Amino acid sequence: MRALQFLPPALTLVDVSPPDIPHEALIRVHRAGICATDIAITHGYAGYSGTLGHEFVGTVERCPDANWIGKRVVGEINIGCGACRRCDQGDPRHCPFRQVLGIRERNGAMAEFVSLPIRNLHLVPDGITDRQAVFLEPLAAACHVLDHHLLSPEMRIFILGDGKLAQLIGRALQAQGFQPTLVGRHPAKLALAKAAGIRTSLLTEVETDLALRRSVDAVIEATGRNAGISLALDLVSPCGIVILKSTFHEAWNLVPQKIVVPEVTLVGSRCGKMEAALDLFSTGRIEVDSLVSAEFSFTDALLAFAAAQDSQALKVQLVMN
Amino acid sequence: MRALQFLPPALTLVDVSPPDIPHEALIRVHRAGICATDIAITHGYAGYSGTLGHEFVGTVERCPDANWIGKRVVGEINIGCGACRRCDQGDPRHCPFRQVLGIRERNGAMAEFVSLPIRNLHLVPDGITDRQAVFLEPLAAACHVLDHHLLSPEMRIFILGDGKLAQLIGRALQAQGFQPTLVGRHPAKLALAKAAGIRTSLLTEVETDLALRRSVDAVIEATGRNAGISLALDLVSPCGIVILKSTFHEAWNLVPQKIVVPEVTLVGSRCGKMEAALDLFSTGRIEVDSLVSAEFSFTDALLAFAAAQDSQALKVQLVMN
Repeated sequence: MRALQFLPPALTLVDVSPPDIPHEALIRVHRAGICATDIAITHGYAGYSGTLGHEFVGTVERCPDANWIGKRVVGEINIGCGACRRCDQGDPRHCPFRQVLGIRERNGAMAEFVSLPIRNLHLVPDGITDRQAVFLEPLAAACHVLDHHLLSPEMRIFILGDGKLAQLIGRALQAQGFQPTLVGRHPAKLALAKAAGIRTSLLTEVETDLALRRSVDAVIEATGRNAGISLALDLVSPCGIVILKSTFHEAWNLVPQKIVVPEVTLVGSRCGKMEAALDLFSTGRIEVDSLVSAEFSFTDALLAFAAAQDSQALKVQLVMN
Repeated sequence: MRALQFLPPALTLVDVSPPDIPHEALIRVHRAGICATDIAITHGYAGYSGTLGHEFVGTVERCPDANWIGKRVVGEINIGCGACRRCDQGDPRHCPFRQVLGIRERNGAMAEFVSLPIRNLHLVPDGITDRQAVFLEPLAAACHVLDHHLLSPEMRIFILGDGKLAQLIGRALQAQGFQPTLVGRHPAKLALAKAAGIRTSLLTEVETDLALRRSVDAVIEATGRNAGISLALDLVSPCGIVILKSTFHEAWNLVPQKIVVPEVTLVGSRCGKMEAALDLFSTGRIEVDSLVSAEFSFTDALLAFAAAQDSQALKVQLVMN
């Protein structure tokens, strides 16, 4: 089968054998999405090599549990060892021995087939198109900002960034009764958020408005740049919250005093639960189609990666054929 | 009156007029304690110049409310503007216009007299000696680690540091049913903690024990060094807590990935409430006298500061005469 692999330093479309893990489900991939993490991996993040891709939708082609065969599914991307305390507690996301689809020791979904344990599968309801289903994984990560139990609807919340993840966080919060302000540098992207009913501000205006300093109850950093963390600490009010969503590996000069004196809480936030994203879709209050800036045939996967790195791009999807 | 002032770049014992703020209480100082923050200020921290000192006990000599005259008191060190939203909510610690005794725009208590608003005063019960009363302010800061509502007694808690603040945090937690482990580099200081019933470990052993990595539910950083933050992030378990207590201004290279991927919560924690420290003393379950490593007459204040910077020193107190 064809697979898009990162074999440092190159991204290559290769021909490999399909995965063959007897006790798992084999899924024929319909579509996969390109995430900022995928792009970061091609620049060395996580030290990963292998097939990329952790956002996908597909149909189960082979499975030890015949009930799954022919079903359209998405997948939880963390594959726990199944034996440790974290896995016992139902949290493979923090299993120390976990594999992560297309990110850590597990070939991903940018391929004709992908393999996953049955417990990682989630059925996709008929009302959700393939294009939308690919958003379930990043939407789960977006919904996860609420799992820390730090945000409440009356708070002044700023989301830094106007990219894919920031847009989904904005939509997830908006749909659940919060009124976040999305802060970005791209007018066209801000216009998309505005069309979804989200308040927006231009980054340059936020940076220069001294009245905003120390006035925001919670700042969600989703810019993928460390300047975003600095701005978050400038904006957040004393005893306020900063949620870090970007997984980049550039070091950042933290002056601990800037956290200790105002008693800020900084929380790391990664993958979410697919159930939350599915629930949100079922309410009909979330719109994601406008976030697709391009679709490429899998044959053109390398062009798709180039397109995804354009500063004006949002979600780029790969369509298998 | 004599006052110990930091007039950059020098620390000097000077002769100045006593404070004269009509609506405040004028307090004759009995004793003052030297804190790591005082030492940091003499190295440029907070850009402060003026009379040092925020840990003290004294007797009210003059006061608009005659009931206070002759009373032995300690004082809350944050002096709010009294008019902003934070002050309205009873939290002058985060008033944006606050003065902080001996730290920010307010002459401190290393002087024969200090002035404070009446609302900042706390009566010291007879059972508490002057030597002990000077610990009420840092003990309040120590107790404050519980105000974030993140710690619980069944947690594995490590305190990094064996200095004054770390020792008080250890004692405050121990007295309230927690079982922290104090981690330090000074065997004599660890022995003191052990004598107070606190578990201890040598820093070098903790640093080299790979089994401890990602195994600690909550790490309280009180070393005053940024290597302490790095170690805290190595030790803390996924979804665990790091409480930052040290106010130093050395920058630290944070790789955001180390917070985001394990979903760690980092909390800044500064001053506490004097009531908590007074309550703790009233239980009789806290011992602080052994933490005094030297007492100096105020005349020898400069020698006292030198002694306080010895790596083996704990609390150094200045005794007025």
